[in-house]
Amino acid sequence: MGFLSYFRSQKKRSASVAKERLQIIVARERSQTATGPDYLPMMKEELLDVIRKYVQVERDAVNIQLDREGDCEVLELNITLPEQHNPHQARE
Amino acid sequence: MGFLSYFRSQKKRSASVAKERLQIIVARERSQTATGPDYLPMMKEELLDVIRKYVQVERDAVNIQLDREGDCEVLELNITLPEQHNPHQARE
Repeated sequence: MGFLSYFRSQKKRSASVAKERLQIIVARERSQTATGPDYLPMMKEELLDVIRKYVQVERDAVNIQLDREGDCEVLELNITLPEQHNPHQARE
Repeated sequence: MGFLSYFRSQKKRSASVAKERLQIIVARERSQTATGPDYLPMMKEELLDVIRKYVQVERDAVNIQLDREGDCEVLELNITLPEQHNPHQARE
Protein backbone atom coordinates (compact mmCIF):
# COMPACT_ATOMS: atom_id res chain seq x y z
CA MET A 1 0.00 0.00 0.00
CA GLY A 2 1.64 3.19 -1.23
CA PHE A 3 0.77 5.54 1.58
CA LEU A 4 1.97 3.20 4.29
CA SER A 5 5.41 3.13 2.66
CA TYR A 6 5.36 6.90 2.44
CA PHE A 7 4.42 7.26 6.08
CA ARG A 8 7.03 4.73 7.21
CA SER A 9 9.75 6.49 5.24
CA GLN A 10 8.85 9.72 7.01
CA LYS A 11 8.87 7.96 10.35
CA LYS A 12 12.52 6.99 10.18
CA ARG A 13 13.51 10.62 10.40
CA SER A 14 11.80 11.03 13.76
CA ALA A 15 12.50 7.56 15.15
CA SER A 16 14.89 8.82 17.79
CA VAL A 17 12.17 10.97 19.36
CA ALA A 18 10.14 7.85 20.24
CA LYS A 19 6.86 9.69 20.65
CA GLU A 20 3.53 8.64 19.29
CA ARG A 21 2.58 10.43 16.13
CA LEU A 22 -0.73 10.93 14.36
CA GLN A 23 -1.14 12.27 10.86
CA ILE A 24 -4.45 13.23 9.27
CA ILE A 25 -4.49 13.97 5.59
CA VAL A 26 -7.51 15.13 3.64
CA ALA A 27 -6.90 15.29 -0.07
CA ARG A 28 -9.45 16.66 -2.46
CA GLU A 29 -9.24 16.28 -6.18
CA ARG A 30 -11.60 18.57 -8.03
CA SER A 31 -12.55 18.07 -11.62
CA GLN A 32 -11.46 21.09 -13.59
CA THR A 33 -14.97 22.32 -14.23
CA ALA A 34 -16.22 21.79 -10.68
CA THR A 35 -17.28 24.68 -8.53
CA GLY A 36 -17.99 24.77 -4.83
CA PRO A 37 -16.51 26.19 -1.65
CA ASP A 38 -13.04 25.50 -0.34
CA TYR A 39 -14.10 23.52 2.66
CA LEU A 40 -10.81 21.86 3.60
CA PRO A 41 -9.54 24.83 5.64
CA MET A 42 -12.85 24.97 7.54
CA MET A 43 -12.63 21.29 8.37
CA LYS A 44 -9.47 21.31 10.41
CA GLU A 45 -10.92 22.24 13.81
CA GLU A 46 -13.69 19.68 13.43
CA LEU A 47 -11.20 16.97 12.57
CA LEU A 48 -9.17 17.89 15.64
CA ASP A 49 -12.34 17.66 17.73
CA VAL A 50 -12.81 14.06 16.54
CA ILE A 51 -9.21 13.21 17.44
CA ARG A 52 -9.60 14.83 20.87
CA LYS A 53 -12.39 12.42 21.74
CA TYR A 54 -9.79 9.65 21.75
CA VAL A 55 -6.49 11.25 22.68
CA GLN A 56 -5.30 14.32 24.48
CA VAL A 57 -3.95 16.83 22.00
CA GLU A 58 -2.07 19.91 23.16
CA ARG A 59 -2.59 22.95 20.98
CA ASP A 60 1.12 23.37 20.29
CA ALA A 61 1.48 19.70 19.34
CA VAL A 62 -0.43 20.26 16.10
CA ASN A 63 1.20 21.30 12.87
CA ILE A 64 -1.19 22.21 10.05
CA GLN A 65 -0.38 22.56 6.37
CA LEU A 66 -2.57 23.28 3.40
CA ASP A 67 -1.15 22.67 -0.05
CA ARG A 68 -2.59 23.26 -3.49
CA GLU A 69 -1.29 22.04 -6.78
CA GLY A 70 -3.47 22.30 -9.84
CA ASP A 71 -6.78 20.64 -9.06
CA CYS A 72 -5.48 18.88 -5.94
CA GLU A 73 -5.81 20.35 -2.50
CA VAL A 74 -4.31 18.67 0.56
CA LEU A 75 -4.90 19.46 4.21
CA GLU A 76 -2.34 17.83 6.48
CA LEU A 77 -2.47 17.74 10.27
CA ASN A 78 0.55 16.38 12.09
CA ILE A 79 0.08 15.70 15.76
CA THR A 80 2.63 14.60 18.30
CA LEU A 81 0.96 12.74 21.12
CA PRO A 82 2.25 12.51 24.65
CA GLU A 83 3.43 9.04 25.62
CA GLN A 84 0.77 7.49 27.82
CA HIS A 85 2.66 4.50 29.14
CA ASN A 86 5.17 4.12 32.01
CA PRO A 87 4.72 7.62 33.40
CA HIS A 88 7.49 7.05 35.93
CA GLN A 89 10.03 5.98 33.36
CA ALA A 90 12.99 8.33 33.17
CA ARG A 91 13.34 10.22 29.90
CA GLU A 92 16.67 10.78 28.29
CA MET B 1 5.53 17.71 -0.76
CA GLY B 2 5.65 13.92 -0.83
CA PHE B 3 2.03 13.10 -0.26
CA LEU B 4 0.79 15.46 -2.94
CA SER B 5 2.93 13.61 -5.48
CA TYR B 6 1.57 10.30 -4.22
CA PHE B 7 -2.00 11.53 -4.48
CA ARG B 8 -1.47 12.98 -7.94
CA SER B 9 0.07 9.76 -9.19
CA GLN B 10 -3.02 7.88 -7.99
CA LYS B 11 -5.25 10.41 -9.64
CA LYS B 12 -4.00 9.69 -13.13
CA ARG B 13 -5.50 6.23 -12.96
CA SER B 14 -8.99 7.62 -12.44
CA ALA B 15 -8.69 10.73 -14.57
CA SER B 16 -11.08 9.44 -17.20
CA VAL B 17 -13.87 9.20 -14.63
CA ALA B 18 -13.74 13.00 -14.07
CA LYS B 19 -15.51 12.91 -10.74
CA GLU B 20 -14.50 14.76 -7.65
CA ARG B 21 -12.59 12.63 -5.18
CA LEU B 22 -11.86 13.00 -1.51
CA GLN B 23 -9.37 10.94 0.44
CA ILE B 24 -8.98 11.00 4.21
CA ILE B 25 -6.02 9.25 5.71
CA VAL B 26 -5.35 8.89 9.40
CA ALA B 27 -1.98 7.37 10.15
CA ARG B 28 -0.90 6.50 13.64
CA GLU B 29 2.62 5.60 14.58
CA ARG B 30 2.88 4.04 18.00
CA SER B 31 6.10 3.76 19.87
CA GLN B 32 6.85 0.08 20.45
CA THR B 33 6.21 0.20 24.17
CA ALA B 34 3.03 2.27 23.95
CA THR B 35 -0.29 0.91 25.06
CA GLY B 36 -3.76 2.29 24.52
CA PRO B 37 -6.89 1.44 22.58
CA ASP B 38 -7.11 1.02 18.85
CA TYR B 39 -9.19 4.08 18.19
CA LEU B 40 -8.71 4.44 14.43
CA PRO B 41 -11.49 1.98 13.52
CA MET B 42 -13.87 3.81 15.87
CA MET B 43 -13.07 7.13 14.27
CA LYS B 44 -14.28 6.44 10.78
CA GLU B 45 -17.98 7.28 11.22
CA GLU B 46 -17.14 10.49 13.03
CA LEU B 47 -14.77 11.54 10.26
CA LEU B 48 -17.49 10.86 7.72
CA ASP B 49 -19.88 12.99 9.77
CA VAL B 50 -17.44 15.92 9.49
CA ILE B 51 -17.20 15.44 5.72
CA ARG B 52 -20.99 15.26 5.42
CA LYS B 53 -21.32 18.74 6.86
CA TYR B 54 -19.69 20.06 3.69
CA VAL B 55 -20.53 17.62 0.94
CA GLN B 56 -23.16 15.04 0.21
CA VAL B 57 -21.71 11.57 0.61
CA GLU B 58 -23.64 8.51 -0.52
CA ARG B 59 -23.02 5.46 1.62
CA ASP B 60 -21.86 3.35 -1.32
CA ALA B 61 -19.45 6.06 -2.46
CA VAL B 62 -17.16 5.38 0.49
CA ASN B 63 -14.39 2.84 0.44
CA ILE B 64 -12.73 2.18 3.80
CA GLN B 65 -9.43 0.43 4.41
CA LEU B 66 -7.50 -0.21 7.58
CA ASP B 67 -3.89 -1.32 7.28
CA ARG B 68 -1.35 -2.29 9.89
CA GLU B 69 2.33 -2.77 9.44
CA GLY B 70 4.54 -3.04 12.49
CA ASP B 71 3.87 -0.02 14.68
CA CYS B 72 2.05 1.90 11.94
CA GLU B 73 -1.69 1.83 11.53
CA VAL B 74 -3.42 3.58 8.67
CA LEU B 75 -7.12 4.28 8.21
CA GLU B 76 -7.98 5.31 4.68
CA LEU B 77 -11.35 6.61 3.50
CA ASN B 78 -11.81 7.09 -0.22
CA ILE B 79 -14.91 9.00 -1.24
CA THR B 80 -16.23 9.68 -4.69
CA LEU B 81 -18.31 12.83 -4.70
CA PRO B 82 -21.10 13.57 -7.11
CA GLU B 83 -20.33 16.36 -9.52
CA GLN B 84 -22.12 19.44 -8.28
CA HIS B 85 -21.88 21.59 -11.36
CA ASN B 86 -24.09 21.65 -14.45
CA PRO B 87 -26.86 19.54 -12.95
CA HIS B 88 -28.70 19.43 -16.26
CA GLN B 89 -25.74 18.15 -18.18
CA ALA B 90 -26.36 14.72 -19.65
CA ARG B 91 -24.26 11.94 -18.17
CA GLU B 92 -22.81 9.24 -20.30
